[in-house]
Order: sequence, then C-alpha cells, then structure tokens
Amino acid sequence: KDVQNERDYRNIAINKVGIKGLRYPVTVLDRNNGHQHTVASINMYVDLPHECKGTHMSRFVELLHLFRPKLSLKTFSDILNQMKAHLNAESAHIEVTFPFFIEKQAPVTASPGLMDYTCRFIGSVNSKSSVDLVSEVVVPISSVCPCSKEISDYGAHNQRGKVYLSTRFKKFIWIEDMVALVERTASCDVYSVLKRSDEKYVTEKGFSNPKFVEDIVRDIALELKADKNITWFAVGVENYESIHNHNAYACITSGQEPSLL
Amino acid sequence: KDVQNERDYRNIAINKVGIKGLRYPVTVLDRNNGHQHTVASINMYVDLPHECKGTHMSRFVELLHLFRPKLSLKTFSDILNQMKAHLNAESAHIEVTFPFFIEKQAPVTASPGLMDYTCRFIGSVNSKSSVDLVSEVVVPISSVCPCSKEISDYGAHNQRGKVYLSTRFKKFIWIEDMVALVERTASCDVYSVLKRSDEKYVTEKGFSNPKFVEDIVRDIALELKADKNITWFAVGVENYESIHNHNAYACITSGQEPSLL
Amino acid sequence: KDVQNERDYRNIAINKVGIKGLRYPVTVLDRNNGHQHTVASINMYVDLPHECKGTHMSRFVELLHLFRPKLSLKTFSDILNQMKAHLNAESAHIEVTFPFFIEKQAPVTASPGLMDYTCRFIGSVNSKSSVDLVSEVVVPISSVCPCSKEISDYGAHNQRGKVYLSTRFKKFIWIEDMVALVERTASCDVYSVLKRSDEKYVTEKGFSNPKFVEDIVRDIALELKADKNITWFAVGVENYESIHNHNAYACITSGQEPSLL
Amino acid sequence: KDVQNERDYRNIAINKVGIKGLRYPVTVLDRNNGHQHTVASINMYVDLPHECKGTHMSRFVELLHLFRPKLSLKTFSDILNQMKAHLNAESAHIEVTFPFFIEKQAPVTASPGLMDYTCRFIGSVNSKSSVDLVSEVVVPISSVCPCSKEISDYGAHNQRGKVYLSTRFKKFIWIEDMVALVERTASCDVYSVLKRSDEKYVTEKGFSNPKFVEDIVRDIALELKADKNITWFAVGVENYESIHNHNAYACITSGQEPSLL
Repeated sequence: KDVQNERDYRNIAINKVGIKGLRYPVTVLDRNNGHQHTVASINMYVDLPHECKGTHMSRFVELLHLFRPKLSLKTFSDILNQMKAHLNAESAHIEVTFPFFIEKQAPVTASPGLMDYTCRFIGSVNSKSSVDLVSEVVVPISSVCPCSKEISDYGAHNQRGKVYLSTRFKKFIWIEDMVALVERTASCDVYSVLKRSDEKYVTEKGFSNPKFVEDIVRDIALELKADKNITWFAVGVENYESIHNHNAYACITSGQEPSLL
Repeated sequence: KDVQNERDYRNIAINKVGIKGLRYPVTVLDRNNGHQHTVASINMYVDLPHECKGTHMSRFVELLHLFRPKLSLKTFSDILNQMKAHLNAESAHIEVTFPFFIEKQAPVTASPGLMDYTCRFIGSVNSKSSVDLVSEVVVPISSVCPCSKEISDYGAHNQRGKVYLSTRFKKFIWIEDMVALVERTASCDVYSVLKRSDEKYVTEKGFSNPKFVEDIVRDIALELKADKNITWFAVGVENYESIHNHNAYACITSGQEPSLL
Repeated sequence: KDVQNERDYRNIAINKVGIKGLRYPVTVLDRNNGHQHTVASINMYVDLPHECKGTHMSRFVELLHLFRPKLSLKTFSDILNQMKAHLNAESAHIEVTFPFFIEKQAPVTASPGLMDYTCRFIGSVNSKSSVDLVSEVVVPISSVCPCSKEISDYGAHNQRGKVYLSTRFKKFIWIEDMVALVERTASCDVYSVLKRSDEKYVTEKGFSNPKFVEDIVRDIALELKADKNITWFAVGVENYESIHNHNAYACITSGQEPSLL
Repeated sequence: KDVQNERDYRNIAINKVGIKGLRYPVTVLDRNNGHQHTVASINMYVDLPHECKGTHMSRFVELLHLFRPKLSLKTFSDILNQMKAHLNAESAHIEVTFPFFIEKQAPVTASPGLMDYTCRFIGSVNSKSSVDLVSEVVVPISSVCPCSKEISDYGAHNQRGKVYLSTRFKKFIWIEDMVALVERTASCDVYSVLKRSDEKYVTEKGFSNPKFVEDIVRDIALELKADKNITWFAVGVENYESIHNHNAYACITSGQEPSLL
C-alpha cells in the first residue's frame, strides 16, 4: 500500500511541502571566473492539493542531484518546472543559500584577499507557469556614527554592520553588482587583508563619511529606485553598535511583494 | 548640533527603524500561576518620515525599562502607543521572543517536569491607531512515519519535530491553549520526565498514531479553521527525520496577512 | 526486563553520560537584589562503570526539578553529590549556562538600564568527593584600535568585542565582580541606555584609551594574577573588527586545568 | 610609529593571538575524486612573547591566500611552519572547519545522493617544531532505543543523532574511514535519498539493532582502541530524543590530550 498516494478527505490543501536544510555543494555563476564552487543550504517545496495525502520526499533530492552542476538564477525556471512535473504539483518553490566569494584588493596596497557574502536565490512558479525570482545578498560594511562624531571632541564610535538586500528584477542581476552597490553606500567597505597604509585609508574614509543606519538604508534605496532593472526591493541595515550590546536596525521596502499564490 | 533632528532631503521614508536583539528579563502571563519570569530577545521599531534624518535610539530602551514589569499581549497596545508618542512616529512595531515554561506530568506516573516552548509576541500599530497582534509558539513534538510503518515488517522510523504556529485572534489567546492544540495533533507529545511505564505509553501511542508532516499540519489547520476566535493563522511542521540529515517540512497559511502599512 | 541495568561486557567505562540542552528556569544569586530569575540551558552527566549497560536518564531531570529554586555555585556541591547518589555514579558533572542581568547607569546622565551577560557555572565531583567549580562570564566591551589611531590623521576604527572569562577560585566569587574586572580593562565598557552626553563621554573615553585584543587580554590577566582568590583562569578576547568580516582574537590561560579524572 | 612592534612591559606572554571566523573556499582531499571544493571557517593563531606588544593580523590572511589551493592534513605542517616564520612566533595553531561530501547509494535501490559531514582539522606546532594534528568529523546517525523496544508491545522510539569523533593518528587518516567507522556502529546510518524499498530496509535494520548512546559510544571506542593507527581519540554521541525536548549524550576519551605548550 502506497500511503502517500491515498486520498485525503480533510479537504485542506497544503501551501508548501518538501525538504528543508539540505546541505549540498553547488556551482554558481561568477562574473570574473565563469563560475565558482560553494556549498548551499537548500529548501525545496511544492504545493499539495487537498485530495492527496502526501508528497514524494525522495524526488526532491533526486532532482537536485541531477541539476547540481548548473545551479543558478538562469536555471531556476528549469528546476522549478521540473519540480512541478516530477511531483505532480501546481506550484513549486526553492530557496538556495550559500556563501559567495569575490576577490578584492586592499584600497592602497592592492593586496589581494577574498571577501565572503552570504547569498540566497529564491524561486517560485505557480499554476500558470509564472516564475518569480528573488536574489538576496548580505554584505558586511563599516559605519561611523554621525552623532558621536558631531558631539565628541575627538573620535567617533564605529562598528561592523550587515546590509540585507533582496531584489526582484527584469533582467538577470549579478551578485557582484548588488554587492558593489551596497559597499559604495557604507561609511567604508570592509576587506579581508589590510596593510598599514590601507588601514589608514579606511579609517580616514570612514571618519570623513559618517552615516546612521537610516542614511545607509536610504542611500541604497535611492540607487535602487533609480535602477530601471529593479522591480522590487527590500533592504535592511543592522549595525553591531560598539557602544551597546544590542543592534541598530532600519529597513525600507519598495512596496508589496508580488504574490503568486 | 542635534544630527538626528536635522532635515533629510532624500525624500525617502523609512518603514522601520529602531533596536534589534536586546536581551531583557520580562514577566509574562501564566494561566496557572498568574505570571512567570523569563528572558526575552526584543526588537522595537518605528517608522521615520521622509523629512527626518534620524530616530532617537535611546528612547526605545528607556520605554522598555518602564514597561518591563507588565509585558504581555494585554499591554502591547499601551507599549505601541507609547512608542509612537515618545518617538513622534506614525507607526510602531515590537517583537518579543522568549521561552515559556509549562509544568507537565508524565502520562502514566504523573512525574512532574517543565516543558519549554519558544514564544513570540508581535505587535504593530499604524497611523490610525489600529493595532495588529500576532502570537507565536514553537512546540516540540514526536512523529511516527505512516509509510515506514506500512511497508516495514516491524518498527517505524520516528523523530522529534517542531511545530511553528502563528495566530491572529479576536479575544486574548493563551499560550497554553495554542500549545495544547498542537500537542494533541502530534503522533505523540513530548515530555521532560518519563519513567519506564511512561516510555512504554508514549512509544505505543506514537506507533498507533503515525502521521506525516502533511497530516499534522492539516490536523492543526482543521482545528484552527473551526475556532471562531482565530482570524488568521500560519502553521509549519518540521520533522528532524531520523533516516536523513535533512528535514521534512509542510506549511499552511489561512490567507493573506492583514497589512497595516 | 530492565535493559539499562543489564551487565555490559565490552569492558569500556564511559566518562560522561547524561542529558544535554535542557532549558529550565532557574534562580541565581544577585548581589544587589538577593537573587534574580533567569533561564538556563543545562547539561548533566555522570560516569558509567564498564560493567553497567546504561544510566537512568529520567533521574537527571527529576533531580533538577527538586533543586531548581536554589541553583547557585553555593549549592553545586549538593547537586553534584545528589547526582552521584541517585545515579550510583563515581563522578558527576553539571554545566548551567544563563543570561545574567545587572542594572547599570549611563556614565553621565545616570539613566538606568539592564546589561545582559552570558554566564556559565561548571561543577564536577570525583570519586573522592573533591569538587571542582568553574565560573564563566561573557562580557561585551568596546575596543579602539591603537594602530589605526596612531597612523590616521583623524578617527580610529573601533568595534564591539566579547571577553570570555573562566575562573577557578578559593572562596565564592560574584559574577558582578568578574564583570566589573573585565569592563574596567576595555577601551570603554558598553551600556544599554546612552543619552547624548553619555555618548560623548564613551566616545572620548574609548578614543583616549585605545587597546588591541592583546592589551585587553593582558590587562585582565594582570589583575587576575594579582588576585589571591583566583587559582586558575582562562581569558579570551574577541573583537568584531569593523574593518574586516572576520574577528581578532587573543587568549591567555594561567596554566594547566586541574583534572579530577 | 609601528605600535604593534613596540616593546611590552607587562611581562605576560599570550598563548594564542590571531584571526577567528574567517570564511574561505578551500580544496580538500577526497579519496574517490582526488579532491573536492568546499567552504571553510578558519581560525589561525600564534603565540606572542611577553616583550612584544602586538602581532601582525594581516599576515594570517596573506598566508592563507597563498596556501588556499592545497589545504589538507598533509600540508598542515607547512602552513604551521610558515605561520611561525612569517609571524616570528614560537608556536602556531590552525583550525579549519568545513562540510565534506561523500556520494552514498541508497541501500537497496542504489539511488545516488550526497551526504554532508562537518569536519575539522586542527594543527599545532611548538617551539621544537613538534607538530600535533587532530582530525574531527561529525556524523549524523539514526538510533533506536533498546529500552523502548523491550518494554513496548509494538514500536520503539528512535531519532537522529550526531557522533562527534576526534582522532590523533600515526599515519594520515581519511575522513571517509572515520565516517565509515561511525556509520557501521549506529542502529542504522542515514541517507540523502531513500526510495520505498530503501526505507523499509533502514526501518527494519534500525529496529533489529537498538542501541543507547552508551552502546554507540562504546562500540566506536572498541574499534578505535583496536586500531593501531589511532594514538588518541575523543568520541561523543548526542541523540535528539524523539520523546523529549532535550538530548541524551555520552562521551569517551582515550586519555589525556597531549599538550604541546
């Protein structure tokens, strides 16, 4: 007896059912190098009509195993449609979270190092085969407090922060471009390698460029609103305040999220 | 010069700005004991109009310090209105996450122990003073796989799972009632103390009552749909599958979230 | 048949066996207020002789349920000896991790707020009833980089850091004293509420007092070495560098840990 | 003025100083495929003599950038010696934590999938150039409770667990061999893909093979004690009990850790 295939009589459809927290090696697109190897945490779901008792959990991993070599925003439509087909579903949803690395040179000495950014691709497809894609990136930054600088005779408190940027877009968008947009709006961006002359540069740049979380989130929103390719965004800035044991946070969303359901 | 109070010319309002991740001791309502002491992680935000450069971060913690003795769903409207007043804001938002403890007796021996449930209260108020409250609870459960039981000559794989339940409601809702609803829909509920006769009971109860994540999420949805006090819900069930290193997941939402913005 | 009580023939004793990750409300000593309510994550283990097949897991939680009202370093010997007695063990070990709150006034305006510190008590007793106690605290601090200040024409990068301090001692030691020791060695300590004049104070204090992780860890070690009550310590300092996405770390241990086993 | 290079007068040597939590892509040895790409979190420390004020943090990342293509237990001695040389240190220490993937076929249908295991390499070198290497792996397993099976008329509670295995060894040891050793001692091992006939197999295998955490930790210790290549080990087993919201844990260590300091 195939329990999953039995009829269900509760008359309640399930929005999403599937697998969560599967760790898998993936290859993602990299503008400079063609592609890069990384490791993802993956969630894959489909809907389940009211009359079906259960989904087929093993098929998610089987599909992933097939698609692994070419996982990217560009192949997400294929994966989503395969999920619908193999699981006899009306809709499908996938979330892939992974660290992405970009080689970045120190600002004065040009010493090379790799910066890590946590990224997430989210894809959904509905019964009419409309596909919704979201690209997210978390970018570490440095912020210097304008109030602290203004009121103090010397110095200004500053700290590491994180920017959480989610976008919907018309044409393919590079992770590298989302990162660059965020980094140029910070008091200063951060690096993996800094020699003495670099450290002088980033200290002075930050101090000359003090910004609240409110300033950073607005400057990012300004750029995104001016970009015709961006159709929706949500941006949050979180500062790990060096004078508190809690964080400062600000977020702006460009409107309601489109809903496929 | 008060930098926060300067005029901003970017013409971009901020949806939420405030403090995040503040750990604070709080007292919450407890049906059997009047109240209980616990420790919360708190986020507090207000909106910021386009013409204001910055909010006043210290006022959030000052307000919290005043309200601490009586934090509950019942006082959330007060806190939210105070946040609006003290921060000259149009809207306010607060999220309070904490462990909640319920004394629970073992099913046969009645040995007493405490169960812990992670809870969250979320409150929002908008410019028209409409208040939106959400009560959330995470309930650990045990599930036995119906397919595994059906196809195997003996045994059935089972595992710990977690149910994530969020509700909106007309009248005040007790955490204890949300927990009880979830626990009676599991293959078996879990306990902190189980003696031998209790362990026999829960093993046999679970084996007699196999359920997929799909079954549990539907049985909870059925009860919530029948409850006139519940105006909205989202329920997710996550099973830490004992045969995999990833989880099974299913969720049902009763409709669109009401939006205050 | 009582499986746990069967004889084991593998001839391998188990160092520690018991329960891990039990969340429980506890009351701990508080110098100003007598005691305070908080929530702990608890691990409890005993040894298991080579001839015993299994321990009795339920007895750990039963014991904890009895002792809960008076959990402190002062009662740890009692708990440890009860664990040995109730579980027929030669040795016992307990770890209790919890947030501890201290009311702290802002440095200029004296605005009150609560600071949170993650603490851990570790206790062990061996077959000769020697008791070993360790008290740990994690203290958030602020550090200003001396190199950045020296080489830059203005400003200096600074950041939140965490100090991990573990001590063994002759007489009872207050969490409050461990926290105070750490806070006075930082570039500046951190607060939950800071008004404008406070923020000026902490900014200037930090800038006047730049310290590497190496300086902070040494200054703490200096104080601990001078304290006759401290018989052993380990101290680590971790700075969430505002110019990098990784942390700086330094640690000093006063010697070999005493071993009871 | 080079602040780090100044003389320090506190007369306190620092055990470890360096960088913590650096995320970096690495390549590790893979028995079947030669090597595999993964992503590591890396800590790198050296000692600091009492007369030196500070270390040179940027050199750690520069060194790592050079070594990245060939990071493995086999190259750890080189990296450690380079760390000593480039940082003018007496001792050096490195910890590299990463997910490692092994292709594993389902037990009946042979459906292929990837299993993920969290691994860590730890290396230290002292002033006499003695190198100490530790290889760690975390292996997810399934365990069935012998007591529950014995006392119940049908069924038995079971759950996912994790085995934490650390080893020191004479000759190079493969991650794949450490994983295989752990998996064969569980009630049943876990898989990423299981079809219906596979699920029947693993359910019945687990039920026929019930084991406490005490049994699993002993069976692993038995194998390690019999292996002439293993000079030291520590093994912990943690079961995410399906009948509780806390875990069962047992550990065995083969003796005192060798100390280089």
